[in-house]
Amino acid sequence: MEKAIVLLSGGMDSLVCAGEALAESQEVSFLHMNYGQKTSVRERKSFDDIADFYKVKESDRKIIDMTFLKQIGGSSLTDENIDVKSYQGDSNVIPDSYVPFRNSIILSLAVSWAEVVGATKLYIGANYEDSPGYPDCRPSYYEAFNRVIKEGTKAGNIEIVTPVLMMKKRDIVLKGQELKVPFALSWSCYKSSDKACGQCDSCALRLRGFREAGIKDPIDYK
Amino acid sequence: MEKAIVLLSGGMDSLVCAGEALAESQEVSFLHMNYGQKTSVRERKSFDDIADFYKVKESDRKIIDMTFLKQIGGSSLTDENIDVKSYQGDSNVIPDSYVPFRNSIILSLAVSWAEVVGATKLYIGANYEDSPGYPDCRPSYYEAFNRVIKEGTKAGNIEIVTPVLMMKKRDIVLKGQELKVPFALSWSCYKSSDKACGQCDSCALRLRGFREAGIKDPIDYK
Repeated sequence: MEKAIVLLSGGMDSLVCAGEALAESQEVSFLHMNYGQKTSVRERKSFDDIADFYKVKESDRKIIDMTFLKQIGGSSLTDENIDVKSYQGDSNVIPDSYVPFRNSIILSLAVSWAEVVGATKLYIGANYEDSPGYPDCRPSYYEAFNRVIKEGTKAGNIEIVTPVLMMKKRDIVLKGQELKVPFALSWSCYKSSDKACGQCDSCALRLRGFREAGIKDPIDYK
Repeated sequence: MEKAIVLLSGGMDSLVCAGEALAESQEVSFLHMNYGQKTSVRERKSFDDIADFYKVKESDRKIIDMTFLKQIGGSSLTDENIDVKSYQGDSNVIPDSYVPFRNSIILSLAVSWAEVVGATKLYIGANYEDSPGYPDCRPSYYEAFNRVIKEGTKAGNIEIVTPVLMMKKRDIVLKGQELKVPFALSWSCYKSSDKACGQCDSCALRLRGFREAGIKDPIDYK
């Protein structure tokens, strides 16, 4: 029986990945990383709500505490001395919300857990349009990482799956609607935890995606 | 000015890497991972002693707490329900002291810190003879990981350096002697923290290396 793990941050991209994984695999576990980001409590709530929605058993959910990332620093998401900036428009400049090599840390942990539980697929909601400036959101990065998994695991049979990597936000919204994912339970805002700010990079891209898809975003904005 | 980071566990292989890095780079930082292994306090003492020996500034030392690895489990080094076995002779079987994909987690964290501090070289004392059964100690694994770094970091200019990867333990001992590294301050035993047990895989390989090099291992054994 094929087992899959979904890296579920609680955002809309990872939610659509969860929808895909549940459509494609017999057994699906959800993995959440708390890396001490400003909205971590809110994101955790989305994780719980989505896992409840899909009736994922407690034993198939895992939260990994990555607050040790604060010890490394260098990002506005984890460093309290750096403010999260408002959306500045699309650019290829790496934003200051970048945690160096963060996706590799997350993927390594997820692959480790996948090996322990015997999962062979690992879904991640990385999206290129979202973050053209992040080097660890490029397709070539995931190809290279899959090679590391092949070389560095016992069986070499775990594969990273990136269903939304090259999709436009608009198409992710449409895909989610097709899969009937509960967008109302997701959280994307980097800045606020009560109502979404509507101003940060993540809110701006989400709002544009829903607008372009012609669908109303079901969450509340300030 | 070229900056290097050394992953210094406190064992003899990483100590020899530190000796190499100090001979080759102008500025060297030491990084230590505490992943909740049974001998973590003793290994930390070795890290401190070696950093003191080389007069590494406090600001150039970093300890990362990886005790969250216990949440993943699946290894006798971190799982208290699995005993560390005595040395069973050389084999290609992956030992139960294997933490799935551990080196990738460690390398990812180290690369993240390297990017923050601007280091371009990352020394790791992985040794193939030590652990032929560990998939993440194969040269092809490090080649693949260097590719991930090239793809997944801002500047793509951090390189993993594995000076002892294909060396016999005997030759590592001889190299260490040539570099005048303080072997007496290192710790290799997986099992004990007062005197080395002399029985576990790590002790057995260390003792054989010193014996074959014709040099007396300066640490105490039970």
